[in-house]
Amino acid sequence: MTEATTGRAPVLDTDTAEARAAILVTGSEILIGRTLDTNSGRLARFLDSHGVRVERVITVDDDPVRLRDAFAELVAGGYDIVCTTGGLGPTHDDRTVELVGDVLGLPLQLRPDLARTIDGITEEFARRRGVQVGDYRRGNDKQATVPEGARILGPVGTAPGLVIEASGSVVIVLPGPPSELTAMLPEVEADAAVAPILARFRPARAILRTFGVPESRIGDLFMALGGDEAFGTETSICASRMEIEVTIRARTEDRSQALADALAAELGDAVYVRDDRRLEQVVVDDLVERSLTVSFAESCTGGLLASRLVNVDGVSSVFHGAIVAYSDAAKQSLLGVSEDTLARHGAVSAECARELALGARDRLGSDFAVSVTGVAGRGGGTADKPVGTVFLHVCGPDLEIPLRVSLRGDRQTIREWTTTQALHLLRRAYGASA
Amino acid sequence: MTEATTGRAPVLDTDTAEARAAILVTGSEILIGRTLDTNSGRLARFLDSHGVRVERVITVDDDPVRLRDAFAELVAGGYDIVCTTGGLGPTHDDRTVELVGDVLGLPLQLRPDLARTIDGITEEFARRRGVQVGDYRRGNDKQATVPEGARILGPVGTAPGLVIEASGSVVIVLPGPPSELTAMLPEVEADAAVAPILARFRPARAILRTFGVPESRIGDLFMALGGDEAFGTETSICASRMEIEVTIRARTEDRSQALADALAAELGDAVYVRDDRRLEQVVVDDLVERSLTVSFAESCTGGLLASRLVNVDGVSSVFHGAIVAYSDAAKQSLLGVSEDTLARHGAVSAECARELALGARDRLGSDFAVSVTGVAGRGGGTADKPVGTVFLHVCGPDLEIPLRVSLRGDRQTIREWTTTQALHLLRRAYGASA
Repeated sequence: MTEATTGRAPVLDTDTAEARAAILVTGSEILIGRTLDTNSGRLARFLDSHGVRVERVITVDDDPVRLRDAFAELVAGGYDIVCTTGGLGPTHDDRTVELVGDVLGLPLQLRPDLARTIDGITEEFARRRGVQVGDYRRGNDKQATVPEGARILGPVGTAPGLVIEASGSVVIVLPGPPSELTAMLPEVEADAAVAPILARFRPARAILRTFGVPESRIGDLFMALGGDEAFGTETSICASRMEIEVTIRARTEDRSQALADALAAELGDAVYVRDDRRLEQVVVDDLVERSLTVSFAESCTGGLLASRLVNVDGVSSVFHGAIVAYSDAAKQSLLGVSEDTLARHGAVSAECARELALGARDRLGSDFAVSVTGVAGRGGGTADKPVGTVFLHVCGPDLEIPLRVSLRGDRQTIREWTTTQALHLLRRAYGASA
Repeated sequence: MTEATTGRAPVLDTDTAEARAAILVTGSEILIGRTLDTNSGRLARFLDSHGVRVERVITVDDDPVRLRDAFAELVAGGYDIVCTTGGLGPTHDDRTVELVGDVLGLPLQLRPDLARTIDGITEEFARRRGVQVGDYRRGNDKQATVPEGARILGPVGTAPGLVIEASGSVVIVLPGPPSELTAMLPEVEADAAVAPILARFRPARAILRTFGVPESRIGDLFMALGGDEAFGTETSICASRMEIEVTIRARTEDRSQALADALAAELGDAVYVRDDRRLEQVVVDDLVERSLTVSFAESCTGGLLASRLVNVDGVSSVFHGAIVAYSDAAKQSLLGVSEDTLARHGAVSAECARELALGARDRLGSDFAVSVTGVAGRGGGTADKPVGTVFLHVCGPDLEIPLRVSLRGDRQTIREWTTTQALHLLRRAYGASA
């Protein structure tokens, strides 16, 4: 409690030149909850990977007064980097460039070469899809009008990004569509004003991710070890998708590792990874290392388990495929679940899960197969199998493990958590086989 | 341009009592880009559905000074509602409750009954998973210590939510885990202080979603019609996942509809939905209405297409299943793609896409089947089939439509956009069959 009233000791800031950043996100569609902002997270990860601390993100709608106020506030905040994302499009409600110029006192200029580039992109869009684009010149000229002295990034879509050095900060103006923003990051990284800030200082970092331990247990352990003050660290402990992630920053490697080692020694097997990799990445890496293959039989997760694994580079050498058997008929015809099992135990049962896993292993010819069948959402629950009941099963060359879990949450949450359970079940299976 | 320098005419605010809200998101894991904040979007959608305008979201890390500053700033902003999310956990870096009490000048009190409830939840967690929880009492007592006069929401996990009336605002303190936050929203809605604000005023709204038209074309059309000034509306035009969404707010239904009608008349078939439903919902509703069924054969999307459809309530009556055939062997054995096709044209080809679709329709016994095979990401691209090349195919009782698209973006973007293309291709097919 004393920490909060006195302000935390700035473990990292005092003796380093850690760079500070802020991000402005704009878009009415975000503030009415219709579009999920993923850009600030992407930018935060990018900046954090270069040791830049993101201290604040402000999200506002497209209202010009609110947008300008927020940008002016961040420019006045003395950050090394101020990023904006969104509001670069061709329509009336895209106001970022204009307001950035206004706040920084830089007049806007139409760049004819940029306008021609954007015209070319629009025409290419129309050609590829065989559509008439109609009149688009006004929108394109708007997008080619930028503050004096701005360096141009892209354009990737039709909107150019901008880098502007002003008022002691570097302002980086980026488009809203996530793929366009992502594609511009290499140019940002290489920019003459941005690169020195990114190179300034990288804190040492350690990560632990655990499964099967409550957050309060880890918190109490951390305090019992003396907390950040004992180690000279800055630690965050966060529950996410049934796992707890501990992230430790410090000025030197030995400090962050000392705390990580102390926690790991106490937590034992609950710690399943000590680096930056996500669960699906750990699983794929393990399978590659052991030359093992896997397939899935999915019912309630509807392909989400497979799509989570498939996000990992190099998955093709270990993943054969998945059968999403949503209907009972598909469970029978594609995976060989018996009519008798479905009639006597139902599709949501340990027996059905077992037959799904065996069927997937057989038909897809993999070393291991994992199945999931459960009641993910509205309706379908019964007294002894309420919503959130999921049966999983893994089978391998020489073992089978059944698992029944009870999850709480909405449809999407239950699905996501089921995929986490399934991947940890697979880890148990190949771990036991090794 | 004049709009920005003079401030936009407040179409809705002048003659209504529209309620205003702000959201504070906290979590170091968010500001280093390791956890994606979905809570502010969920809250924004909830508030917007009640006609409350969310004007600002601030995201800060767990640093007590930055967290307190941001909360104090929002409390000073005169909003009707200030929501916070995150920082309610049992560990040292969960500081929200303490700082909220501090800023509002309310002393903290341990509530013994709440502490006992949280102990029970922790013990249940341990019992269900068969783990030892160790010492957890300190964390639980922390979570049971709340500002004087706060009304308790939940707890759903171990963290209670809070409603506090103070300084002319209603402060709603919510936990970080999305499923816990979502589960508390009905209690928020029913709260004695919150309900009157939610009931105050709901603006009329119209939505158009289009596919296959560039954003600049819609923007120019909107301006040619006279824009928001001509209709007394407040319009946002937003590109997302290859679609453009137009959201219109107005004080009355006839105003928002007049603009929506005028745009729809010009845009014709490009407008595919005029309400709140997402693409996958539109597809499921259409299939239910026509008593049609569908299945998928997925290669590069790896189950993402199926999992997108499966998010829709009522999907089970129209969706048979999907085969995720990642390896060539699976394409042959599960879907009957010929060795000859794979050898002559490769897995990423129009020929393979056709055989995948025909195979899925045959094996899953559905009216329609859609297939996707492409080069989603790093490596795998060739000169005539670069990364982003995707072949899709739909087949139905009396038709087949092939489609080749070239998508730009990272692996995940190409996958997501492919699912949008696939669902629109399915719409074309059942539309043509009707």
